[in-house]
Amino acid sequence: MEYYGSQINNLIQHLAALPGIGGKTAQRLAFHIVRMPKDQADALAKSITDAREHVRYCKVCGTMTDAEICPICADGKRDHSTIMVVENSRDLAAYEKTGKYSGVYHVLGGAISPMLGVGPSDIRLKELMQRLQGDVKEVIIATGSSLEGETTAMYISKLIKPTGIKVSRIASGVPVGGDLEYIDEVTLLRALEGRTEL
Amino acid sequence: MEYYGSQINNLIQHLAALPGIGGKTAQRLAFHIVRMPKDQADALAKSITDAREHVRYCKVCGTMTDAEICPICADGKRDHSTIMVVENSRDLAAYEKTGKYSGVYHVLGGAISPMLGVGPSDIRLKELMQRLQGDVKEVIIATGSSLEGETTAMYISKLIKPTGIKVSRIASGVPVGGDLEYIDEVTLLRALEGRTEL
Repeated sequence: MEYYGSQINNLIQHLAALPGIGGKTAQRLAFHIVRMPKDQADALAKSITDAREHVRYCKVCGTMTDAEICPICADGKRDHSTIMVVENSRDLAAYEKTGKYSGVYHVLGGAISPMLGVGPSDIRLKELMQRLQGDVKEVIIATGSSLEGETTAMYISKLIKPTGIKVSRIASGVPVGGDLEYIDEVTLLRALEGRTEL
Repeated sequence: MEYYGSQINNLIQHLAALPGIGGKTAQRLAFHIVRMPKDQADALAKSITDAREHVRYCKVCGTMTDAEICPICADGKRDHSTIMVVENSRDLAAYEKTGKYSGVYHVLGGAISPMLGVGPSDIRLKELMQRLQGDVKEVIIATGSSLEGETTAMYISKLIKPTGIKVSRIASGVPVGGDLEYIDEVTLLRALEGRTEL
């Protein structure tokens, strides 16, 4: 891509190194960026430096944020006696978008995976158990429904049960609006097992 | 997206403002960026500032570059007597990628479009005519095969014909590997009209 000159070329290569951004997209983005008003391009660059500079993990729940305590844990209006355990900050974001959950979270930073060599001590379980010494009424386990997510959920529930705190697991089944014929068999069986009386 | 804190939120919003980057992608990219080594994130930010700062248009062909004269126009090994006329720098890049064209380019910066109010004086035609006063043997018109591209091609050919310089137009027809049944009728007719004897 030597035909653009070194600076534009350099930008294209940096963009193409981002996940999910291919060569064509990187070129399109670079062309857009160099034609932006200068202050906008500078603001984009600054937002990158600033976010990277200030990123940290919430002292309480472990989610990615830029303050000592994240906005959710710092919010007095939320129900701090209900903790939803998620694998990562993206899963937290997914539940936040529903706007219907008023409790707080605990971000594990992964799931137990013998295959990848991730054991119970590699995710934030110790921190979770420490939080349970406070006034906690329920722990909702919202790890994924993959093998790793299920293993982690099972492990956590066994860990918490002796404390007497209520432990629940989010339901798995057919997604709303999902056409049965396109859903995998495991999910269909899971939906059948989890059926509720009408 | 208040749950990430203002800096990460700010980065997500800046990324989501880029063309073709939706909310989910912006979030994924932002998470990737804040977890990059600091020097890599800074280099990405710097590549944006640098490219935007130094972007300019080649004095000869008008392509986007960061030098006074772009690497292609500055290349003594290229055939400067053959000029390919393209609508924009991306089209130039597309032909450069073939690696088979050894002439130089002229970037119009658009195509004539009465619908969008783009007239002949709004694209770099005057600059093209000035270049023809040098030692030019052929002008290859490689504007797109849209209505605007065709109109522009026609206009340019009429402009150049009186000078006696050879003018050609890239072929339009069925793309290589294209299945006839999925190709639109106009293209099929164009391919028929442009048939060559075997």
